[in-house]
Amino acid sequence: MNREDVLEKQPGKDELSGCRSEQNGRVSTGIKYLDDITQGGFLCGRTYLVSGTPGTGKSIFSLQFLMAGLAEGDHSVYVCVNERPEDVVFTAKSLGWDLEPAVSAGKILFLDMSPFFSRSAVINHNRYERRGTDVNIRKFLIDLDKYARNYSAKRLIIDSINLIMPGTHESRAATAARELVISIEQYLSCTTLLTFDCWKGSGKNEIHPIESYVSGVINLQLVEKSGCFDRVMWLKKVKATVVGSEAHKFIIEPVDGITGLRAPAANGRLFAREPNDDRNRIVRQEVTKEHTAVLVKE
Amino acid sequence: MNREDVLEKQPGKDELSGCRSEQNGRVSTGIKYLDDITQGGFLCGRTYLVSGTPGTGKSIFSLQFLMAGLAEGDHSVYVCVNERPEDVVFTAKSLGWDLEPAVSAGKILFLDMSPFFSRSAVINHNRYERRGTDVNIRKFLIDLDKYARNYSAKRLIIDSINLIMPGTHESRAATAARELVISIEQYLSCTTLLTFDCWKGSGKNEIHPIESYVSGVINLQLVEKSGCFDRVMWLKKVKATVVGSEAHKFIIEPVDGITGLRAPAANGRLFAREPNDDRNRIVRQEVTKEHTAVLVKE
Amino acid sequence: MNREDVLEKQPGKDELSGCRSEQNGRVSTGIKYLDDITQGGFLCGRTYLVSGTPGTGKSIFSLQFLMAGLAEGDHSVYVCVNERPEDVVFTAKSLGWDLEPAVSAGKILFLDMSPFFSRSAVINHNRYERRGTDVNIRKFLIDLDKYARNYSAKRLIIDSINLIMPGTHESRAATAARELVISIEQYLSCTTLLTFDCWKGSGKNEIHPIESYVSGVINLQLVEKSGCFDRVMWLKKVKATVVGSEAHKFIIEPVDGITGLRAPAANGRLFAREPNDDRNRIVRQEVTKEHTAVLVKE
Amino acid sequence: MNREDVLEKQPGKDELSGCRSEQNGRVSTGIKYLDDITQGGFLCGRTYLVSGTPGTGKSIFSLQFLMAGLAEGDHSVYVCVNERPEDVVFTAKSLGWDLEPAVSAGKILFLDMSPFFSRSAVINHNRYERRGTDVNIRKFLIDLDKYARNYSAKRLIIDSINLIMPGTHESRAATAARELVISIEQYLSCTTLLTFDCWKGSGKNEIHPIESYVSGVINLQLVEKSGCFDRVMWLKKVKATVVGSEAHKFIIEPVDGITGLRAPAANGRLFAREPNDDRNRIVRQEVTKEHTAVLVKE
Amino acid sequence: MNREDVLEKQPGKDELSGCRSEQNGRVSTGIKYLDDITQGGFLCGRTYLVSGTPGTGKSIFSLQFLMAGLAEGDHSVYVCVNERPEDVVFTAKSLGWDLEPAVSAGKILFLDMSPFFSRSAVINHNRYERRGTDVNIRKFLIDLDKYARNYSAKRLIIDSINLIMPGTHESRAATAARELVISIEQYLSCTTLLTFDCWKGSGKNEIHPIESYVSGVINLQLVEKSGCFDRVMWLKKVKATVVGSEAHKFIIEPVDGITGLRAPAANGRLFAREPNDDRNRIVRQEVTKEHTAVLVKE
Amino acid sequence: MNREDVLEKQPGKDELSGCRSEQNGRVSTGIKYLDDITQGGFLCGRTYLVSGTPGTGKSIFSLQFLMAGLAEGDHSVYVCVNERPEDVVFTAKSLGWDLEPAVSAGKILFLDMSPFFSRSAVINHNRYERRGTDVNIRKFLIDLDKYARNYSAKRLIIDSINLIMPGTHESRAATAARELVISIEQYLSCTTLLTFDCWKGSGKNEIHPIESYVSGVINLQLVEKSGCFDRVMWLKKVKATVVGSEAHKFIIEPVDGITGLRAPAANGRLFAREPNDDRNRIVRQEVTKEHTAVLVKE
Repeated sequence: MNREDVLEKQPGKDELSGCRSEQNGRVSTGIKYLDDITQGGFLCGRTYLVSGTPGTGKSIFSLQFLMAGLAEGDHSVYVCVNERPEDVVFTAKSLGWDLEPAVSAGKILFLDMSPFFSRSAVINHNRYERRGTDVNIRKFLIDLDKYARNYSAKRLIIDSINLIMPGTHESRAATAARELVISIEQYLSCTTLLTFDCWKGSGKNEIHPIESYVSGVINLQLVEKSGCFDRVMWLKKVKATVVGSEAHKFIIEPVDGITGLRAPAANGRLFAREPNDDRNRIVRQEVTKEHTAVLVKE
Repeated sequence: MNREDVLEKQPGKDELSGCRSEQNGRVSTGIKYLDDITQGGFLCGRTYLVSGTPGTGKSIFSLQFLMAGLAEGDHSVYVCVNERPEDVVFTAKSLGWDLEPAVSAGKILFLDMSPFFSRSAVINHNRYERRGTDVNIRKFLIDLDKYARNYSAKRLIIDSINLIMPGTHESRAATAARELVISIEQYLSCTTLLTFDCWKGSGKNEIHPIESYVSGVINLQLVEKSGCFDRVMWLKKVKATVVGSEAHKFIIEPVDGITGLRAPAANGRLFAREPNDDRNRIVRQEVTKEHTAVLVKE
Repeated sequence: MNREDVLEKQPGKDELSGCRSEQNGRVSTGIKYLDDITQGGFLCGRTYLVSGTPGTGKSIFSLQFLMAGLAEGDHSVYVCVNERPEDVVFTAKSLGWDLEPAVSAGKILFLDMSPFFSRSAVINHNRYERRGTDVNIRKFLIDLDKYARNYSAKRLIIDSINLIMPGTHESRAATAARELVISIEQYLSCTTLLTFDCWKGSGKNEIHPIESYVSGVINLQLVEKSGCFDRVMWLKKVKATVVGSEAHKFIIEPVDGITGLRAPAANGRLFAREPNDDRNRIVRQEVTKEHTAVLVKE
Repeated sequence: MNREDVLEKQPGKDELSGCRSEQNGRVSTGIKYLDDITQGGFLCGRTYLVSGTPGTGKSIFSLQFLMAGLAEGDHSVYVCVNERPEDVVFTAKSLGWDLEPAVSAGKILFLDMSPFFSRSAVINHNRYERRGTDVNIRKFLIDLDKYARNYSAKRLIIDSINLIMPGTHESRAATAARELVISIEQYLSCTTLLTFDCWKGSGKNEIHPIESYVSGVINLQLVEKSGCFDRVMWLKKVKATVVGSEAHKFIIEPVDGITGLRAPAANGRLFAREPNDDRNRIVRQEVTKEHTAVLVKE
Repeated sequence: MNREDVLEKQPGKDELSGCRSEQNGRVSTGIKYLDDITQGGFLCGRTYLVSGTPGTGKSIFSLQFLMAGLAEGDHSVYVCVNERPEDVVFTAKSLGWDLEPAVSAGKILFLDMSPFFSRSAVINHNRYERRGTDVNIRKFLIDLDKYARNYSAKRLIIDSINLIMPGTHESRAATAARELVISIEQYLSCTTLLTFDCWKGSGKNEIHPIESYVSGVINLQLVEKSGCFDRVMWLKKVKATVVGSEAHKFIIEPVDGITGLRAPAANGRLFAREPNDDRNRIVRQEVTKEHTAVLVKE
Repeated sequence: MNREDVLEKQPGKDELSGCRSEQNGRVSTGIKYLDDITQGGFLCGRTYLVSGTPGTGKSIFSLQFLMAGLAEGDHSVYVCVNERPEDVVFTAKSLGWDLEPAVSAGKILFLDMSPFFSRSAVINHNRYERRGTDVNIRKFLIDLDKYARNYSAKRLIIDSINLIMPGTHESRAATAARELVISIEQYLSCTTLLTFDCWKGSGKNEIHPIESYVSGVINLQLVEKSGCFDRVMWLKKVKATVVGSEAHKFIIEPVDGITGLRAPAANGRLFAREPNDDRNRIVRQEVTKEHTAVLVKE
């Protein structure tokens, strides 16, 4: 293939049938409720985005995804951008989860971005002119590859991607987003959870281009209701998964973490039908044994 | 014609009467409901846009358009921008559609843009400075021409055009959009489906200039309704087609894919009349035998 | 007059009384309903704007203005920017209108801008760097003058002006708009219909500066009403014309094209009075015999 | 005073007491309704702004201000920016007003800006590169001074100021606006009416900085009300004038032009009191004989 | 202190206890209603902002602050940016207030910024190229210092600050605002009233950074209410003052000027309690004799 | 670690378990109500943000945090950006709090940024050209380190961070915010309160990227309710703390300062359950003795 080419011809038949997702099935998200309504969780080898304004629970979601990996014996890489590793460990502890044994056992590898930001003025008093501080996404990918490639991690968490990506409305954001997803999926063979901090109004209205390239987008919200705020989770997009389109209330509690509050009304369907719709009674055939569960018969 | 000219005099009479659409009729969209309300589907040789925010079903729409081509024996070219070909095949399989035989038989040609984005930092550790990553739309058109010209495809799908087009509000977006449509329609003799990812609020309010140059625009939405989300399809624009102006609810299900939920109230008319409008009883004459079906007599 | 002057003293008395509009009266818009409520249609020699988002019916409006010219024996120039001439002809045919005889008879001159946009990459594979593609409005006016000056057209249609004008919010848009209108009205002696594609929300809120310089602005809209969309026409501005200020529902149908749905409530007045307003009974005198019809006596 | 100074010390006592407005009283606006609610019209020697979106009646307002000057025997200068002088004359005629005798008698001096814009490409085919077309406001003021200084006009109309001013949100708009008003008021001894075309949403929300420097702002609106549009006038600001703060409905009709529809509820007061407010019964003393009329005693 | 330092260590104890406000108490705002609800008016030596769209009464507020100074025998400096001094005098006269004796007696010093703007094109015909017209805020402060330092003014009014400050959303606006306030408060020992013209929507939503650095912000509004407009004053911020948080209706009338319409519901408290709140009956102790009055006992 | 590295491998086990928060527990916020609902106040060694528009009470919140430090015998550093130290002292006095003894005793160290802004034009008349006035955040951090490092402060207050940070929507704001938090937490061992002035609409909608990097965000609002304004506090985010998600009304009064108005409905839980939710009766186990209190048993 010519280096200048924009398009490339289709891969051979073998490549097509040998795709990762089909072979590896699904992995638990760490949130039982979410596993239930997605026929088992995230597709193996794919990338998912958890978005929301600060304080909506993205880091706790990440922790639960990490805990699920521990439960399944997976190695995991946790890239700390927003917090230091010790703060992640402390937050986990405040929820009743002890990560230290797993860190000691080499099950969790923390990669820390804090030094990149703190390696700053205070140390060298006589040198305080502004160096470029934009993170080069390619340099980030090289470092990630260097530390993670031989670790054979099954799960990768980046909390959050904001400091390593151009902003929502920058024209180069779409290209960088496509590069990030394709690079992670091609060179690291793991299921990835990215978090995204929404800084412009609610996450419902702010759409980062990366949402077009990941296999699923879960948006966490705080919805005002007469002076109080409900926690709500919305599956904006889930590739190759039969799932309802409603918003799901949840709570966050010690020990249990994120917990769905009630059984979803229309579990197991892409479209939440109206109650008096005749088609509700139709029994659908199982599509593929492994990946899409038998649909509910009512 | 002078190379500097902006305008060109009218083509001769033969060219005018020999237009593609009239000769070739319409092709199925792959969605029976849509074929029903558009007198047979898309106009041959024209370009259509399916727009919507991530997760509204644009890729599934594309797959159905592709499946319809298989059913009619057409050769199709599928340009993968958002996903890799193997992921497209997997999504199809999760819906119960097996594309692999058609790929093997040479009925579907996947053109993959992923390598353009992944051919990146991770490979060459010592070279990570940012090169320009904007896709040159003319280079894209050259590549498309190179791979597709001799394939005699009847259908072309580009999912999605965002990474090869300037953004909605860039001043050069309109010119690039005009170039894309005119180049495809003039050099590749196929009916084309373009998808467009809306990243700014709902697709209802974001209008990309390309909507002025394609022959039809179908907008997919998720409409909130007391915490639940309805899937809705809206035919914003359909050239040379008698069609109602209402929003259509639909569901996505394995095997059937996108399915219109109920019969449209005012099928077969450009304007949904009010019930007590006398003109509803007027019988309209057939306009042209092939392209506009007899209008309903009530 | 000094070339540097910004202002020029008033023209002599003869020029003032010899203005085109007074001598030539009005010409039919092609839409009976619109002719009825505007005392006969558009003012001769003036410029009008039809605006709306894609799919609201601007091209069909243009076609009807063209058909009205045919009916009155006028020569017309149709500048194709959004579509190719053959597509315009096909859309007309789908509505039951055959333009080909008139084209053959030299009654309609199509000027095509497509080649300007398609004269692109695909032809010369080895030359795909981006050339400037912005259309120079002065070059456009020179070409228009070259082809149209000796054709003695009575009607001019440009569908649409977007690609030849700076965008709504560019600071030079107002100056370019003033230039376009003044140049057409001064050098080509015809009544002109310009269409404008609204790309930012509904046309109701987006106001292009050209609206200040044309003699009339007609805005076409699709208004949502419980999941359905009504077609509505609004006369935002009509110079020297006594007209009501309400929105008018319309339908688009084969053969009849755009048709106003019901008689306007307050036809013939600039202000729609309230029913119990005493002044409704006042009989107004005819102002000038030819241009403003006798006002309704109730 | 040093040329570099930003501030200058107060003028002597004579200058302060000799201010134009006090000596010359008020002049009719041409709209009886408006004269009634402003104690006689505009302050002599001051500048007023009439703003509104295209089609709200700004040019007709300008014409009525011009007609009022004719009735009072004033010489007037009318600067045509949006239209040509012959179109202004024709619009007047369509309303039943014949301006030609006054033009012939030298009572009205039209200054035309059209040639500045039309002196363009079509004439010189071989020279179509874009020259700067931004109007230099200082050059405009020099030209205005050159033609108008010796004409001893009492009234000046500029319809509209948009093409000679930076846009609403440009940072230099405020400075240019201050310059325009101060230059006109200092060098030309006339009462001035400026019109301003609102291009961003309704004029209610778009505020051009010039509103801070003129002595009054009258905003014309079309207010939607169940599919119909009411014409409404709002006195956003009137310096040194006791006036109510309500919106006034009006109509436009031949012969009478702009006419207020009903007597204002709270004429003669800056604040529309609530009916049961005791202070309504207080009798206020006359402030100055000439400029503020006796306030209503209820 | 090093010239490069950003921070400086705390001042000595004497400086802290010797602060101006405590020694000088409060000065009347000129509006009795406002003095009543703020325990005596503005803090001596501090800076206050009156903001609002054009026509909301900022200049009349300024005049009343000036009149209050005259009543208390203060010398005042009035910086005219929006109007000429003679227009300020005339507006005062139209309200029944004669400023001329005080000007003659040297009690009021007008500093006029008009010449800076009018010193323009019309005078020198052969020199009309645009010079920079942005006002340098430091040059403004030097001039202000030059004219005002030896005048021993107790009150300073700048109507308005817009032309001497960067706009609301310019990044350097916050720094310039901090500089303006600190420079006035440090070098001129007077209580200062600044006005600010809101040009972007209502003042309620547009917040200029200077609001963070002044000791109080009073926003004037015109609030629409069924076609009529109420005048409303809102104390957005008042440092070191116990004041309620409600909006206050007011009227503007000759002689009395701005007058609060009714007694505030919750005078004397920072928070307007709900009627059935038990704490309403608690008697609070006086805090400091001079500055915070005894709170109401109910 | 290579200076070029973006990522760094996990710290050793000791570092992880030795994190500050766990060892030091929590410190009082100075607001009893807030301490009650957060299991004791702020986490030691962490950074918190108090945001709000001008006049919402951020400075009074800061003062109460300072007073709480005095009560606990802590040394505190107060960085004055918006006001001068003497104004802070005066505001405290107006609320009944005397800071001077503590300042004299060396318990409070004021660092003043005013000289940086006032060191301006007025002093040197012949030198008024604009020097760069943007505060270099690294220089700020060096100065802060220089004055504060040996003071062994337990509490740090910066009121406010706006003048030392890029604006909300500047692309480098996120990076600068990350640097500020990481530098303070790493080099100064204190609990930090930052205030942030919201200048774009209400603080509810404006989200500064720093909210992603601090351990808690408290937003203060003035909420309009029929012409009156309620003071409301909202805990948008609180790391490692079990807290309800409702808005809390509060009042500001002399002596008591900020006081929560009523007991929170759902104290002690991250999610405010609905009354008829069965899970309300479940008794949760204590998670860690020190940091998360026993949850309420109902």
